[in-house]
Amino acid sequence: MSETLATGPDFSRGDGLLPAIAQDAASGDVLMLAYMNAESFRETLATGRAVYYSRSRKKLWRKGEESGNVQLVRAIYVDCDCDTILLRVDQVGGAACHEGYKSCFFRQVIPEGLKVIAERVFDPAEVYKKK
Amino acid sequence: MSETLATGPDFSRGDGLLPAIAQDAASGDVLMLAYMNAESFRETLATGRAVYYSRSRKKLWRKGEESGNVQLVRAIYVDCDCDTILLRVDQVGGAACHEGYKSCFFRQVIPEGLKVIAERVFDPAEVYKKK
Repeated sequence: MSETLATGPDFSRGDGLLPAIAQDAASGDVLMLAYMNAESFRETLATGRAVYYSRSRKKLWRKGEESGNVQLVRAIYVDCDCDTILLRVDQVGGAACHEGYKSCFFRQVIPEGLKVIAERVFDPAEVYKKK
Repeated sequence: MSETLATGPDFSRGDGLLPAIAQDAASGDVLMLAYMNAESFRETLATGRAVYYSRSRKKLWRKGEESGNVQLVRAIYVDCDCDTILLRVDQVGGAACHEGYKSCFFRQVIPEGLKVIAERVFDPAEVYKKK
């Protein structure tokens, strides 16, 4: 499964799965973190849409294939160790999170616990029941 | 080692290590990704400085303790699954990357390979030889 690309993410690390951060290309907001294997990375490059690897479902996760909220990839970066990927994306539908928020990071850690700091863009019950 | 906090990152996942994204609080630039365990997260909360867990050195990594480039934590977020942490930080010294760049993501993946898209803030040979 694991694979080293000549110039790019080093999928020989992390058991072939590397964290991939999706950042909104326009606002700079960090939208989500998911994982990629070499196959999902190649498909992302080939299609221009973010494709991840779902660790729970153990298969490729074509982001937005259910909700329609695909991510159009504007640029891809790797970090100094070639073991983390950063995508700058246009988030179709305005929400990356399956809970209906623009960003998965919609809760802030404060001394009292967790505080929701964003508003829902869509109702997840509506979006996911259609299929 | 692993631990579940009542309201916060779920360190019972990921073998007790969760990815933590550091984002520049002012510019929104994604600076780096590292890992935290429960102990490093608690110390981050207590001190207001980013403390990670180094997977290679297998110990707490007080970011900047060698270079002086500490990260002052302005806000902390968790994602919908409570298995990724996002820090908004002020990066002292202007550079998060040990290679001397502001961000560890200083190379873009382009069809021809990797392209350096940033300029060095410091010379790593100078910064790290002092100690």
